[in-house]
Amino acid sequence: MSVVVQNIKRTDPDLVSACAKARYGVATVHEAQGRKGLLAAYMNPIYRGTHVAGTAVTVSAAPCDNWMIHVAVEQCQPSDVLVLATTSPSDAGYFGDLLATSLHARGVKALIIDAGVRDTADLEQMGFPVWSKAIHSQGTVKETLGDVNIPIVCAGALVNPGDLIVADDDGVVVIARTDVADVLAKSAAREALEESKRVRLASGELGLDIYNMRPRLKEEGLVYMDQVEYLGNS
Amino acid sequence: MSVVVQNIKRTDPDLVSACAKARYGVATVHEAQGRKGLLAAYMNPIYRGTHVAGTAVTVSAAPCDNWMIHVAVEQCQPSDVLVLATTSPSDAGYFGDLLATSLHARGVKALIIDAGVRDTADLEQMGFPVWSKAIHSQGTVKETLGDVNIPIVCAGALVNPGDLIVADDDGVVVIARTDVADVLAKSAAREALEESKRVRLASGELGLDIYNMRPRLKEEGLVYMDQVEYLGNS
Amino acid sequence: MSVVVQNIKRTDPDLVSACAKARYGVATVHEAQGRKGLLAAYMNPIYRGTHVAGTAVTVSAAPCDNWMIHVAVEQCQPSDVLVLATTSPSDAGYFGDLLATSLHARGVKALIIDAGVRDTADLEQMGFPVWSKAIHSQGTVKETLGDVNIPIVCAGALVNPGDLIVADDDGVVVIARTDVADVLAKSAAREALEESKRVRLASGELGLDIYNMRPRLKEEGLVYMDQVEYLGNS
Amino acid sequence: MSVVVQNIKRTDPDLVSACAKARYGVATVHEAQGRKGLLAAYMNPIYRGTHVAGTAVTVSAAPCDNWMIHVAVEQCQPSDVLVLATTSPSDAGYFGDLLATSLHARGVKALIIDAGVRDTADLEQMGFPVWSKAIHSQGTVKETLGDVNIPIVCAGALVNPGDLIVADDDGVVVIARTDVADVLAKSAAREALEESKRVRLASGELGLDIYNMRPRLKEEGLVYMDQVEYLGNS
Amino acid sequence: MSVVVQNIKRTDPDLVSACAKARYGVATVHEAQGRKGLLAAYMNPIYRGTHVAGTAVTVSAAPCDNWMIHVAVEQCQPSDVLVLATTSPSDAGYFGDLLATSLHARGVKALIIDAGVRDTADLEQMGFPVWSKAIHSQGTVKETLGDVNIPIVCAGALVNPGDLIVADDDGVVVIARTDVADVLAKSAAREALEESKRVRLASGELGLDIYNMRPRLKEEGLVYMDQVEYLGNS
Amino acid sequence: MSVVVQNIKRTDPDLVSACAKARYGVATVHEAQGRKGLLAAYMNPIYRGTHVAGTAVTVSAAPCDNWMIHVAVEQCQPSDVLVLATTSPSDAGYFGDLLATSLHARGVKALIIDAGVRDTADLEQMGFPVWSKAIHSQGTVKETLGDVNIPIVCAGALVNPGDLIVADDDGVVVIARTDVADVLAKSAAREALEESKRVRLASGELGLDIYNMRPRLKEEGLVYMDQVEYLGNS
Repeated sequence: MSVVVQNIKRTDPDLVSACAKARYGVATVHEAQGRKGLLAAYMNPIYRGTHVAGTAVTVSAAPCDNWMIHVAVEQCQPSDVLVLATTSPSDAGYFGDLLATSLHARGVKALIIDAGVRDTADLEQMGFPVWSKAIHSQGTVKETLGDVNIPIVCAGALVNPGDLIVADDDGVVVIARTDVADVLAKSAAREALEESKRVRLASGELGLDIYNMRPRLKEEGLVYMDQVEYLGNS
Repeated sequence: MSVVVQNIKRTDPDLVSACAKARYGVATVHEAQGRKGLLAAYMNPIYRGTHVAGTAVTVSAAPCDNWMIHVAVEQCQPSDVLVLATTSPSDAGYFGDLLATSLHARGVKALIIDAGVRDTADLEQMGFPVWSKAIHSQGTVKETLGDVNIPIVCAGALVNPGDLIVADDDGVVVIARTDVADVLAKSAAREALEESKRVRLASGELGLDIYNMRPRLKEEGLVYMDQVEYLGNS
Repeated sequence: MSVVVQNIKRTDPDLVSACAKARYGVATVHEAQGRKGLLAAYMNPIYRGTHVAGTAVTVSAAPCDNWMIHVAVEQCQPSDVLVLATTSPSDAGYFGDLLATSLHARGVKALIIDAGVRDTADLEQMGFPVWSKAIHSQGTVKETLGDVNIPIVCAGALVNPGDLIVADDDGVVVIARTDVADVLAKSAAREALEESKRVRLASGELGLDIYNMRPRLKEEGLVYMDQVEYLGNS
Repeated sequence: MSVVVQNIKRTDPDLVSACAKARYGVATVHEAQGRKGLLAAYMNPIYRGTHVAGTAVTVSAAPCDNWMIHVAVEQCQPSDVLVLATTSPSDAGYFGDLLATSLHARGVKALIIDAGVRDTADLEQMGFPVWSKAIHSQGTVKETLGDVNIPIVCAGALVNPGDLIVADDDGVVVIARTDVADVLAKSAAREALEESKRVRLASGELGLDIYNMRPRLKEEGLVYMDQVEYLGNS
Repeated sequence: MSVVVQNIKRTDPDLVSACAKARYGVATVHEAQGRKGLLAAYMNPIYRGTHVAGTAVTVSAAPCDNWMIHVAVEQCQPSDVLVLATTSPSDAGYFGDLLATSLHARGVKALIIDAGVRDTADLEQMGFPVWSKAIHSQGTVKETLGDVNIPIVCAGALVNPGDLIVADDDGVVVIARTDVADVLAKSAAREALEESKRVRLASGELGLDIYNMRPRLKEEGLVYMDQVEYLGNS
Repeated sequence: MSVVVQNIKRTDPDLVSACAKARYGVATVHEAQGRKGLLAAYMNPIYRGTHVAGTAVTVSAAPCDNWMIHVAVEQCQPSDVLVLATTSPSDAGYFGDLLATSLHARGVKALIIDAGVRDTADLEQMGFPVWSKAIHSQGTVKETLGDVNIPIVCAGALVNPGDLIVADDDGVVVIARTDVADVLAKSAAREALEESKRVRLASGELGLDIYNMRPRLKEEGLVYMDQVEYLGNS
């Protein structure tokens, strides 16, 4: 059975706005939530320099078939991010400037797709960011049903509809809807902590001292020697 | 026997100019000619933001041997695009700024190479676009003959000398010489059609309605349900 | 035993400065030293448009463990380049903006890492270039010792501490410390020679004639024929 | 927080036995459950010729760290299959003959691991099958906690503890615990249907006729022509 | 337009039989025809130890759609080999034991498929060899037309219907129909020559002497030195 | 300058024999020498079931050029293993049954090649094992000099001539000549230790208890809970 799930519970819009405004990086969020939720390293932005935070509308699509994207558009609201996984690997170009125009008109912020995308020059010009596995013009068909707003595995990460998606030049991370408030608080704390570290590091202080690593390194057995001695040894 | 084929039949120059002027995208052309002729997704531009349309001069080269490129230069005319395939996979850097200077002097528009390229900063500065499998400085030799202007398979696509090559940020597509007029006409029609769609989609109209997809989706068995109901079911 | 080798012999600073000032390209240096020392083609800059020449401080790190980078920072001097290899393949994000801040404060010019990097937008903004195998936010731990300033194999190339690293948009090459003077002299000679070639090629003269290739091509059996004849033959 | 979940609900043992006895193939099961649950194509058996059906005990492990396997062993019962995913991609050798001996002693049937395995000659000799991403001797550490018997994404598929795993020369498929009875019934029906088809096909009857495809092919526009005519056309 | 080309010209059956009987290896044939026609290295046999020579019936199929295989079966004769390329890369399992049963009933010798295959244990048991890019159970649909017996590019090589396909543990090579007699004669000559070389090499004679390589090596500048001298130099 | 280094120092033949006789596995040796010296996971045996220990004769070859193998044969002695790296990546078939016959006649035990190999059915039949990156029939030329018995980087590992190579179904490891005695002693100790562990594990004792892991797991914060409780929590 193919299904379109409607009236999904979304991450609290205030939290989405807060995350977008703070521009928490993917690396920060990933650490803040305990190193979970990261999509695979092969998910790259089609152009650099953007940051997106939005709520997931999920699509499970047949390989080389983009029919369900049309179905999903109707389910989208402002501040959503469309997240698409295929039921078999594909690098076909499921998405181009027409679908981007449609999503843009509904206030959707971005597309995350574990497959290919095309018309990338147009997408960059209109400012619609995409994170994808491939850039490829290969066309798709509209023959096989899929699902909208069911849980999907996208680039190795489990995404539920309504989860918060954060994406930047480093990649994409997903935060479970019920964890968002907690993770954002931890992200803020982490950034504050990092800022103080940044100042000390920029002044030339060493991480070895800031984090008090020397005793443990010694305990683990790290040895310092001059190159003359080392080369004599080896 | 290694051969250089001369006096090849090229795509009508007026058609080449028309295609270059119209800047038909690779995705558009690919669809317009029935989803054929696309090179593999691993063929990327060394820098983004260019569009090229030109006639193929083909090179079949030995692995890690760029001798035949020198031979091919002489066969090139203004508005040609050099297309190189290797007889065994290689990511060596067959091509750099000197060869680009030479091709540029002859009015050649671009290089499409199923191998590696180097001096990419220089190439970007001089405005000579390249679509390649790799960026790599690894040198090549000049020891083994190959062929110029014979049919080749480049990145999975059959390219005959004189065919029209179109390349942009999405990749590369080849149009058989005798199909060009027809494909360009269809590309123009397609773009016109897309423009009207774009306007409607931008206004918020849905593809579901524009393309009248709802009846067929229903017939295929697509079901809509609320999340409450779905989660109760699963 | 894990070791930090201190007081390493570095490439003569005057040679490092000369190389940085001359901005010899990776392709040029690679050819000038006899096509050796090139790192694998998968090592890409996180942003384009930079050129770096600096002395290697090497790190051998456990997979997904960046502890040794903190140890290595202390060993760095101005004009160094940090070069990291892992003892098992990893695309985790070993390095971000905090470590970059620390290295930058010590005058380090760049990072070469056969693994992943994160915070790439920050790194680009602060002008700290990185050549890496991946961009990935995946976090690392600080549990297992490694080594600093021992010989390492990075992306397929042997790097000794103190060697000269040259990196640009084409990739990365290493020059053994004792070869640097010789390789730079040959790079200069090569660039001078190329410049004269570039002028002739830009004027439309053919490489076939400049390099006197025609006799040898004929001797090897290269045949020229018209397309009419070729198609009749095939 | 790292957790070991105990007393998991497993697939009904009678169903597990029935599946193992019937030796339903991965392809059959995958089709029978609506083309879901298949692990990625890169998951290969270390030796061919085995078929396994067992209940999943899941492990989420840090990259290059096999500590949690030791923890998981204690949670295993006869007819279980250990399924391991890493929190960052790794091809290190997490598993060898000692751990296999331990699992074998507890009646565990196989290991499914989205990483590397070693001692494969010993594993083949003792008859302990493994499906893995890599065969690699690279050692792992025991430093970082992970989780046992939580839901994991393994090679792109969601696996819950207690689910039924089926693996053969074609790869690996997972069936959700509550779907097993239904999927096995459909697998049996499918095999029965296929058997009747197999007899007809073996006798020379064509699928075109058995499945009555000719009318729809004609309707879609498939054209038959002689090669003479086709070559004249093209 | 989708087309099934009938009454194709096939390689002379006596030549096919001769090639099958002589069991010329893929490497031998590839060399004998001037190092052309080799399919990509990723095309592997699903089980080792077979040798096949047969005439190509070609299929161009949509991604993840195996409908055209059913159409192609009817076009097959004894001693044919089915060769399938997809119009977009796919590793789905297009082919399993039912289709193999059908092809086997018509005397078809093997399948060459630039995609995935399943039921491989059954295929091995029934002795139907397949060379493929992947082993994967992922199902396909029957929705989109393709073509039968048109020229295709399969794994990087151009295959025309009726061409001779040779496949063994080393991979797959195609010989153009009109070249077969010539290539087989050269293969026989090559094998005879190799046999005499094999005897001399087995007796301990060196290739350096048999092929008289020493003078040319010296001329090219090869230097012999003792390790003591070499290590003193470096 | 291309060089053939003669009269290399080899690992003590008694140690080589001892290693071959003891059949220490690659995983064991790798651990025994501190997790160093492992070649990349993509190096696979062309057929399973062999174990080899022998002294390295190294070859650095140009891409797609096997001339230096002929030169290297003369430098080989009984119990040597030929180890070949290319100066640019290549999967061409550098080696087939004729060269194997020649090496076999000189008592060479195996080939380790970071490139392709062909005639693999013949090699298996004659019992000459090869570990390679690819199986591919693509031919090579004999045009460019390389080096014999210089240090090379093969599949990511540094190999010096005379080093001990150990290879089995798990892959390939190199032991520096001067470390062999020590590493073999540690391998023997490791195997003895593992044997006692194996007996305890086979009897059902848990690694958790044998290695006394429970206290440290608890200290690190591992929590056990029932599934009912866990699902209530999540």
